[in-house]
Amino acid sequence: MSSRPVSGTTRSVDQYRDTIEQTLRPLAARAVASVPVPAALGRQLAEDVSSPVDLPVFRNSAMDGYAVTAESVAVTPVTLPLAGVVAAGEPGRTPLPPGAALKVMTGAPIPPGADCVVPVEHTHSEGDTVTIERGRAAGEFVREAGTDVRTGELLVPAGVALAPRHIAALAAVGLAEVPVFKPIRAAVVTTGDELVPAGTPLRPGQIYNSNGIALAAALAANGVEVVSVTHSTDDPAEFRRLIDAATESADVVFTSGGVSQGDFEVVKEVLRPLGGEFGSVAVQPGGPQGLTVLGGVPVLSFPGNPVSTMVSFEVFARPILRQLSGLPAIEIRDLPLLAAVRSPAGRRQFLRGRITADGVEPVSGQGSHLVAGMAKAEVLIDIPAEVTEVAAGTIVGVRAL
Amino acid sequence: MSSRPVSGTTRSVDQYRDTIEQTLRPLAARAVASVPVPAALGRQLAEDVSSPVDLPVFRNSAMDGYAVTAESVAVTPVTLPLAGVVAAGEPGRTPLPPGAALKVMTGAPIPPGADCVVPVEHTHSEGDTVTIERGRAAGEFVREAGTDVRTGELLVPAGVALAPRHIAALAAVGLAEVPVFKPIRAAVVTTGDELVPAGTPLRPGQIYNSNGIALAAALAANGVEVVSVTHSTDDPAEFRRLIDAATESADVVFTSGGVSQGDFEVVKEVLRPLGGEFGSVAVQPGGPQGLTVLGGVPVLSFPGNPVSTMVSFEVFARPILRQLSGLPAIEIRDLPLLAAVRSPAGRRQFLRGRITADGVEPVSGQGSHLVAGMAKAEVLIDIPAEVTEVAAGTIVGVRAL
Repeated sequence: MSSRPVSGTTRSVDQYRDTIEQTLRPLAARAVASVPVPAALGRQLAEDVSSPVDLPVFRNSAMDGYAVTAESVAVTPVTLPLAGVVAAGEPGRTPLPPGAALKVMTGAPIPPGADCVVPVEHTHSEGDTVTIERGRAAGEFVREAGTDVRTGELLVPAGVALAPRHIAALAAVGLAEVPVFKPIRAAVVTTGDELVPAGTPLRPGQIYNSNGIALAAALAANGVEVVSVTHSTDDPAEFRRLIDAATESADVVFTSGGVSQGDFEVVKEVLRPLGGEFGSVAVQPGGPQGLTVLGGVPVLSFPGNPVSTMVSFEVFARPILRQLSGLPAIEIRDLPLLAAVRSPAGRRQFLRGRITADGVEPVSGQGSHLVAGMAKAEVLIDIPAEVTEVAAGTIVGVRAL
Repeated sequence: MSSRPVSGTTRSVDQYRDTIEQTLRPLAARAVASVPVPAALGRQLAEDVSSPVDLPVFRNSAMDGYAVTAESVAVTPVTLPLAGVVAAGEPGRTPLPPGAALKVMTGAPIPPGADCVVPVEHTHSEGDTVTIERGRAAGEFVREAGTDVRTGELLVPAGVALAPRHIAALAAVGLAEVPVFKPIRAAVVTTGDELVPAGTPLRPGQIYNSNGIALAAALAANGVEVVSVTHSTDDPAEFRRLIDAATESADVVFTSGGVSQGDFEVVKEVLRPLGGEFGSVAVQPGGPQGLTVLGGVPVLSFPGNPVSTMVSFEVFARPILRQLSGLPAIEIRDLPLLAAVRSPAGRRQFLRGRITADGVEPVSGQGSHLVAGMAKAEVLIDIPAEVTEVAAGTIVGVRAL
């Protein structure tokens, strides 16, 4: 093993992100399942859904009031005979006698012969009559059938992650089930002899493994189903076994650690001979990156420092995973930077920041190992590669974590 | 039953929202459960969590490189004897012989006696020696113990809904479980003789019940656990039975329908004698509103038009429910309105809108029954009560749905 740095072409953040996106894009074509509408919240609709009915289903009243003809209330006040009441849910087949009024509830069918509704607020009833205090034109407070959506018209397009408002529309047209894509399935394999699971006492030189739990949480928060989280020591045979198991059960695999210039870089050692491309991306944190396709399954290899792992996920994986799952894009805003910062030449830097009323401030501690510090951050501050110093007050790009 | 409108004081949106918020605020004090950190994503931390360890746990190397004393590399290039290798995970108790170098991997303990690390990129090794091409000051590329977080220091404050970055920090300090609040439990009771469940053929006058499914989805999307969704006809005895069951199992109950000026207003009829306050809020859609506290459980009664139900939830319930569950506040932005709109005098109007590159445009169809139209909306456009006409280009408040 050489102790010299492995030379390789350094790619830009945009170039590498494009490569990742091209590699993951085939995951858009996933299996489809039919799920009950009430269980479909957050699921991604697999096909355009058209309405099986007109909505409103029938001509109905927009108000509690009196169904009349506009003609009969052209001059007001006018007192009309009251011919009955139509509640919501009634078939509504009783026609309106000429010159009379029928009381109608909101949502009740407009009786045949009526052409408008006078809201109850502008009426006064007494015994078998109602006095109309204000006239209405034909069509007022009448909801015509099909004015919301017509039978066969597109209701919700394929590809969206179903929000409550979509669920409401699907339920309103009476659909019991909808076709949704199965979520992307991901496996996580962390590496490193020094890592031990939470709850275990630490021996000298050991630290807790946070990357597996953190990547699993980040994946789940972005619509991905995590099928396994495993950990390998720096033993190549063990890593090979775990990566093979991961690629058999998942659509995409994430690894952490074992990708940089050390002597025990298990991920690089195992995956490079299998066609993996390992090299440097002009980014901080997260420079060393690897990408392998094993049996058709993309394996994204992130560096092992906890902040590097999380920032790699945010920058390279999260945007395309959200897009493939139909979730809204990550919001990017321009805000004034509240403190001057320095940035390494030639590397795009993602600082951890916090939003205030005045702009965005870097959180204290930007080292790639400062995972507790990252918990305080709400955003990443994007400093372009060519920039080495940013004065306070400069407008910077900010993306929500 | 009177057919006259029930007169009552009309409250403003802000007044009514304040009343709802005061009524729901006691739900902040909920039972606490201990859950494994990997299962805590999105759960609300019930207590301040302090770090049980220093992080970094021990003084370690920030780079793959050579641990030396700054003094020994003050003049470069200099060739030093190589005394061994310290991998990550090793106890790291071998001291650095004076004037020598020890190879260290990222994360490996800094050997006693060393005070800096020279990254491998600035070195050249041959046999038992290493040539250091560039010197370093004491402390460079050394991560001191406790510089991220110290034992006993606050790691994540009580009240936050745990995001992946919080999960990462909790895992990094080795916590296996964390105390979280149990979610708010809600029950939904919809009403109306005309409503039938999805999948059932419609008879004349009937429509599909979307409010139960839509409210359940909206609650779930905002951190609330939905314990039941039931439907009552306009029969007061049936509604009373269902509302009693709902208040027995839930922390808060939502009803839809039966609150306006019609003849069959089952919710108002049942709950007003039990202390419910029913009246008008100066808002469109969603004017008729009811609030009852039954056996200590708040019951929010929304009007039954699907869009009125959803907008009532967005405006009156969602902000406080998110706050009580530790979720980020709903984002409110100011954007130019892309089309002129009219608005009723004296009523704050929430139009459904869609964001474009240039601003926000109202979606076509703003009637409170246009539930399919609402599926196309991404935001609510907030038109103040006193405004009756808004010119295109006016800056308006916009809140994400």
